[in-house]
This record gives sequence, C-alpha cells and structure tokens, in this order.
Amino acid sequence: MELQHIDKVTIASWDRFYRANAINALVGVKPVSLIGTISNAGTPNVAVFSSMVHLGSNPALIGYINRPRAAAPDTLANIEATGVYTINHIHASFVAQAHQTSAKYPSEVDEFEAVGLTPIYRKGCVAPFVQESMLQYQLQLVEIVPIQHNGTFLVIGSVENIWLPHNVLQADGFIDVASIGTISSAGNDAYYTTQLLQRFAYAKP
Amino acid sequence: MELQHIDKVTIASWDRFYRANAINALVGVKPVSLIGTISNAGTPNVAVFSSMVHLGSNPALIGYINRPRAAAPDTLANIEATGVYTINHIHASFVAQAHQTSAKYPSEVDEFEAVGLTPIYRKGCVAPFVQESMLQYQLQLVEIVPIQHNGTFLVIGSVENIWLPHNVLQADGFIDVASIGTISSAGNDAYYTTQLLQRFAYAKP
Repeated sequence: MELQHIDKVTIASWDRFYRANAINALVGVKPVSLIGTISNAGTPNVAVFSSMVHLGSNPALIGYINRPRAAAPDTLANIEATGVYTINHIHASFVAQAHQTSAKYPSEVDEFEAVGLTPIYRKGCVAPFVQESMLQYQLQLVEIVPIQHNGTFLVIGSVENIWLPHNVLQADGFIDVASIGTISSAGNDAYYTTQLLQRFAYAKP
Repeated sequence: MELQHIDKVTIASWDRFYRANAINALVGVKPVSLIGTISNAGTPNVAVFSSMVHLGSNPALIGYINRPRAAAPDTLANIEATGVYTINHIHASFVAQAHQTSAKYPSEVDEFEAVGLTPIYRKGCVAPFVQESMLQYQLQLVEIVPIQHNGTFLVIGSVENIWLPHNVLQADGFIDVASIGTISSAGNDAYYTTQLLQRFAYAKP
C-alpha cells in the first residue's frame, strides 16, 4: 500500500489544535486515568491525564507527564505540597464526567463537585480516590523531572496501595483491565474500549 | 462494590514476573510500537516498546522509556550513535513477530531477519522502517533523560516525518488508529484491539 507522507514543514504549518490531535494520536491508543489530589488548603482536585507510563516494577514506579505549569497548575502544585496522589481508572459509565475534568476550573473549585464524581478518603492517604473507579492506586511522590524542551514534567511516584475488584488479579499477576471496563484514549478528546487479542509466552531467541 | 486491597508489603513480596505483570497492567491498555534503529556497523535492529508518551505538539515531541542498559542495550546504543529512529504501529497480522522482537538477541543479529519483518529505508533516514506497519514516523533524538531511581531512560525525539494511509487524517487532525487496525498492549505480554467509544468537545468550566 502506498502511504501518504507528511513532513515536518507541513506539521509546523498546522493549526494548534489540529497538530495536537494528530501528534497525540501518533502514539496510538493510550492509558487514561483520573488523578486525585488535595491542596494544603484542603480543596480536592480531580483531573484527567492520558500519559501514564510504567517505569519499573522493582521498585514499583509509575510516571505521568504534567503539562507546563501555566496550562495545568493544580495537580502538580498539590502533589508538590502533599507528596501523595491517587490514580483511578475510567469506565464508560463516567467518561463524560472524566473528560469534563479537563476544563480549566479555578484552583479553589472542587472538580469532584463541579463534574459530579464522588471523592472517597482512605486511612493514611490525604488525597481523594474516585469512588466510581473500579481500579484505584495510591502513589507517593518520588521525583519531578523537568523536561527542558517544552516545560513539561515527568512526575514519578511509587505504588503504595492498590484497590481492585476481587478475582481480577490472575494467577500470573496479569490484570485484564478490559474485563473491568477500563477505557483508554487517543488524540485530544477520543476514548476507546479495548478487547484482549492475545497473550504470548516470554520470548526467547 | 467492595474492592480488594493490596498494600506495598504484599507488592514487594511478589515474584519478579508476577509483580511486573501486575504493576505494568495498572497503567491500563497502552501504546505499543516497533522501534527501528541501525548500528554504526550497519546492523538493523527492531524492538517492541510499550511506553510511548506524547510530550507536546509544538514542537512535536514523543518520548519512550528505555529499560536499563544491561536489560535493553541495542536500541538505546543505536539511537545514541546515529541520532535517528523510527516508530512503527503494530497490527494483528504481525503481532507474533512484533512480540518475538522482545527476545534478547545478540547485538550482531538483525531482528528483522530473525523474526520475519521487512525493513524499508527512506531518503534522509539511516534507520529502517517496518514495511508491514501502516503508520510509521521518523524521530530525531532530542535528549536522553536518565531516571536515577531505577536506571531507565526517557528518550525524547522530535517528529520529522509521518507516513500513514491516505484519507486517515481527519478534518480536525484526529487519526482513529483503530480504523487502521493499530493494536495496544498491557502487562508483560498481552495485546489488545481497540474500538472508538466516543469523542467529546473541548471542555469548558
């Protein structure tokens, strides 16, 4: 099949939202979750992020990319202030509320209330979890790595606690997140359901 | 619904592969692609990675996590040597070959030959593309950021060229990668098909 070629001059000529949609979609269908935090003043925050990345399992480290401070200040400031945050899977039943958290609410607004999601608090964690989520985990801040080229940050946390439905963790540690209806995303504003295609054995030469 | 609670003591007690599977699956269904590189000696390399992350669209920057050098040396060394690499979407038709590239072949082995994929070369790019892939893009190395806590690296590249089927790029820049059969992955060894659920308007308070 003959493919269409797009060069960097064309990419640079694109309108801002058009380019964001296209470049974002290049990585493919990706994780999306709600990050729950709380400010020192006690205002809960919940915001949608689609940049979670597994960094390693020993220690258990997960990262996410936070946009520049001017574009997305609250989640980052709250994590810096408290050192703790939660990541909560999104399901089709509340995808509209999850997407609505991407709106730029003032810092003093509680997005849980604004979008209609339910915060829950657990012992030993000041940050709120999203009750509607079937897979929730708690992170302790490890490091915030500034990315010099565009003002973003790689925020690294260690996995402290996990909550998920009973009987979902399989005999080999695998979790088929499609079986609990976790959705993924692509581009600026698209959400995807997923279906397990195939698992493989550990590959050897 | 009452959820199962797993704490960090339990996580630390898990077997290595079990823990990798579980912690990996926490992020949800995620991008997976083949990275094409070439060594200074001219040996092509192709390897599967499931850690691509969109860093920004102006400039167009995409990152991926490279495991510690001892675990995954070739791709990183080739990118350092040549400064250029390709990222190629994976489809169900060659998912077995793609997974097989995760085997630890010696540096002098051409994985394209070893697993049965076809390299193609394009003007101005020494790194090979994967001919079987319907969406391919070329990256110029921008920075390799070491992650101190576990010896991994965030490899950042700028998008130089894109190849994709005609009529896939939509009027607003969106690319529905499910429409070209791009698959995603989860855990250590699971691959997923995806289906567009819903798109939303830009969210405002």
